[in-house]
Amino acid sequence: LHTRLPAVGTTVFSLMSALASEHSAVNLGQGFPDFACEPALLDHVDAAMRAGHNQYPMMTGVPALREAIAAKIAAVYGAHYNAATEITVTAGATQALTTAILCCVHPGEEVIVIEPAYDSYLPAITLAGGVPVPVAMELGEQGYTVPWDRIAAAVTPRTRLIIINTPHNPTGSILRAADLRALTDIVRGSDILILSDEVYEHMVYDGARHESVCRYPELAGRSFVVSSFGKTYHVTGWKIGYVAAPASLMAEFRKVHQYNVFSVNTPMQHGLATYMADPAPYRDLPAFYQRKRDLFRDGLKGSRFTLLPADGTYFQCVKYEAISPILESDFAQWLTTDIKVAAIPVSAFYSQGRESGIVRFCFAKKDETLRLALERLARL
Amino acid sequence: LHTRLPAVGTTVFSLMSALASEHSAVNLGQGFPDFACEPALLDHVDAAMRAGHNQYPMMTGVPALREAIAAKIAAVYGAHYNAATEITVTAGATQALTTAILCCVHPGEEVIVIEPAYDSYLPAITLAGGVPVPVAMELGEQGYTVPWDRIAAAVTPRTRLIIINTPHNPTGSILRAADLRALTDIVRGSDILILSDEVYEHMVYDGARHESVCRYPELAGRSFVVSSFGKTYHVTGWKIGYVAAPASLMAEFRKVHQYNVFSVNTPMQHGLATYMADPAPYRDLPAFYQRKRDLFRDGLKGSRFTLLPADGTYFQCVKYEAISPILESDFAQWLTTDIKVAAIPVSAFYSQGRESGIVRFCFAKKDETLRLALERLARL
Ligand SMILES: CSCCC(=O)C(=O)O
Ligand SMILES: CSCCC(=O)C(=O)O
Repeated sequence: LHTRLPAVGTTVFSLMSALASEHSAVNLGQGFPDFACEPALLDHVDAAMRAGHNQYPMMTGVPALREAIAAKIAAVYGAHYNAATEITVTAGATQALTTAILCCVHPGEEVIVIEPAYDSYLPAITLAGGVPVPVAMELGEQGYTVPWDRIAAAVTPRTRLIIINTPHNPTGSILRAADLRALTDIVRGSDILILSDEVYEHMVYDGARHESVCRYPELAGRSFVVSSFGKTYHVTGWKIGYVAAPASLMAEFRKVHQYNVFSVNTPMQHGLATYMADPAPYRDLPAFYQRKRDLFRDGLKGSRFTLLPADGTYFQCVKYEAISPILESDFAQWLTTDIKVAAIPVSAFYSQGRESGIVRFCFAKKDETLRLALERLARL
Repeated sequence: LHTRLPAVGTTVFSLMSALASEHSAVNLGQGFPDFACEPALLDHVDAAMRAGHNQYPMMTGVPALREAIAAKIAAVYGAHYNAATEITVTAGATQALTTAILCCVHPGEEVIVIEPAYDSYLPAITLAGGVPVPVAMELGEQGYTVPWDRIAAAVTPRTRLIIINTPHNPTGSILRAADLRALTDIVRGSDILILSDEVYEHMVYDGARHESVCRYPELAGRSFVVSSFGKTYHVTGWKIGYVAAPASLMAEFRKVHQYNVFSVNTPMQHGLATYMADPAPYRDLPAFYQRKRDLFRDGLKGSRFTLLPADGTYFQCVKYEAISPILESDFAQWLTTDIKVAAIPVSAFYSQGRESGIVRFCFAKKDETLRLALERLARL
């Protein structure tokens, strides 16, 4: 059997969640909340089902949801996307990312990927026949930063796409205005497209602002911007996300979307559209998660873990060199099986498995879950 | 902008649905019911949401749903698939089909497609870099049949996949045991895989039996079998389907699935799993739709349309040569705008737009909807 992705293994998130449940570990590995979403959201979905919204929606998404998305982008980022031609609802952010890559990357074309990188980017590029060009982030006193000079040096005439991700999974770093300006300088005058993974857009802390590509017209004009409802509304299992892009790019995206999934769950889209009329849930999210972040960081302060900065996302990366010299995947495994707290090795986000002695914890958990995990981690 | 599917237009189903709604036509075009699903199904989904099943499910699908699917296949077709390793839940049948194609078709490899063919097959093959090899069905006294000798003649050393579809959209024909035997003879000894689109598996009429590839071990051992809950349970907008395949094929399918959508809506999967415990809904489906088919056929008997056989699916194809000599797409358009009954031109299912003077009606509609359409069509 001669297939297209022979070398791919099972994603680290599935493996660690399975290991966590096998060993009854507190699962701070795979990123998902262990608390409930707001009941109002469920009420809206139920109402949509009962109202008979159960047949094919428009291929591009339920109009009310596309309009709610466009309104949110306008309110939050001051950017104007046409709900009819520039927004498409997707079956989760992963489908959005893979569809965007399949849409515009031709065999042999290069895609610059900033590592550590979410683990779906590379297989999607491979599936398209593209060539991933990884550039590693630098880790200094300020945490992880993107070396724009090395990104610029990686550009060739075959560069088709640059993938960015802010707030960044797994590092919890965020791009600042200066980063976006550096990226603008790199792509100006070229025909390089940008795929901006912003699924944690509403999780930015300490008063910083999310530098969405939407805010930068020179970038937005060549970008697919991807987000996710699962992260923002505590329903990661609903698998609904969206893409915003200028009409010319979106027309091409939709050609692939149409034949990849055609369309996305109708009642869930209606429920989300109604729910989005209230900005409170995403507006209050930074404070909600910043408190959890601080609870988790404070709990680790007396420990032998070194805390990396956590400026965004619901992830906290820690260095464990003072505890053990072993490989990240071994350490994460040992944490899960012996200490009963699951984590994700950051090496899993590098194509060459780079080792930095760092693992990632997810703090999107009930306070009591975080406290239980902290109790166990404090023993180290 | 140099993209991967430049030549693709908007799918005929979206176009005709938009035209139907613009002209307030009865929409017998795009295939979806205009009646409600059973409330119990909604109750199960709601219960799953309230029980907190809203986070990532397993990448392969909720175990209870995979087990329910395996049990159904065993009960109906006497075939045994391992729920853990041989069943995967997908974000609709389209995603299953495209993922299967992306998984096993390499650039330059050939895929035999029997035309008329569902309109996602060709773009998916193109996206994979594959070469579609269309073979036309024959239309005789018995309706549409597959010319297996011409399929055999189309096989080359580069043939990677043959796509079959039974019950067949758009023709409403079904494959018989002799067809499956002919296919078996063609692939025996080769490494050709089969993609079997069986989304209308529970809509076969007049006491005929659905010849699922699952029933034929020699075929099943090299097949991806695709089905859909939307069609069976009157919820086309839920976009949940599944693939069954032997473990070796399924392992490869999942590598692509994992990075295409990762996983599928959790509460809907739980709701479907509970609902599937009752076989009545799919067991009663043939009688339910056969009555609608007969109502629709009887209503057209006095008309100048010639009815083609309708042995399966919820589609009825008709020849209109006694009414008009115009192209199918023009006729379908005229039916929609002037007669106020939307239909789908069968030419849209051919890569070369072959004209046979045939349009397709969907009879998955309330009796009153069918009667209103018949009243209008009878004027012709
Ligand atoms: C799709 S499972 C992975 C969830 C996630 O984004 C993460 O844990 O990084
Ligand atoms: C995905 S919209 C098309 C529905 C359908 O299968 C058909 O009408 O043939």
